Amino acid sequence: MPTITKPLPACPVETTLQLIGNKWKVLIIRDLLDGTKRFNELMRSLTGISQKVLTSNLRDMESADLVLRTVYPEVPPRVEYALTETGRSLQPVLDSMTSWGTAYKERMSH
Amino acid sequence: MPTITKPLPACPVETTLQLIGNKWKVLIIRDLLDGTKRFNELMRSLTGISQKVLTSNLRDMESADLVLRTVYPEVPPRVEYALTETGRSLQPVLDSMTSWGTAYKERMSH
Repeated sequence: MPTITKPLPACPVETTLQLIGNKWKVLIIRDLLDGTKRFNELMRSLTGISQKVLTSNLRDMESADLVLRTVYPEVPPRVEYALTETGRSLQPVLDSMTSWGTAYKERMSH
Repeated sequence: MPTITKPLPACPVETTLQLIGNKWKVLIIRDLLDGTKRFNELMRSLTGISQKVLTSNLRDMESADLVLRTVYPEVPPRVEYALTETGRSLQPVLDSMTSWGTAYKERMSH
């Protein structure tokens, strides 16, 4: 288990927000729920993200035990990102966001 | 229906993030799912938020048809905030965040 330096808030909703409470983290999880990705695949999928911001978010998520980074000793080295079991356990959160977003769009189009 | 000026993204997860994709909005929804609140009650509950940021988030959420603002003609005027039906429909999203945050905290405490 990695060390979490920042203490977790008492409210579980705030705990979730502390870990995935920015747009990019949620979208990284969406992409990785679909399967292992390389850094450049994430860059292409996350329109508008900078390399620095993607790196920083991935590091946070590694520290929080949500993402696993694997380096394959090839030339050039291949780096892959996957969700940990804890990361995959976010599936129901993403599913509820998918359902809500779909219903909201339908409602607003009428 | 209010006019949404920014177009909604194709991905429903991104739609949800566009509407509630910051920490304060999620916490405002958490508080209002519990019942109607006055501005100062929200200020007290949302530790660290400024009056300006709370006002700005509440206005965004009114425009997105998530929050209803009611002004009672008293002296001084009483202003109350409640969720609309669309806002209340976020309950499953908050519930999934509550479950996940609770499980994460348990996991990290072992």
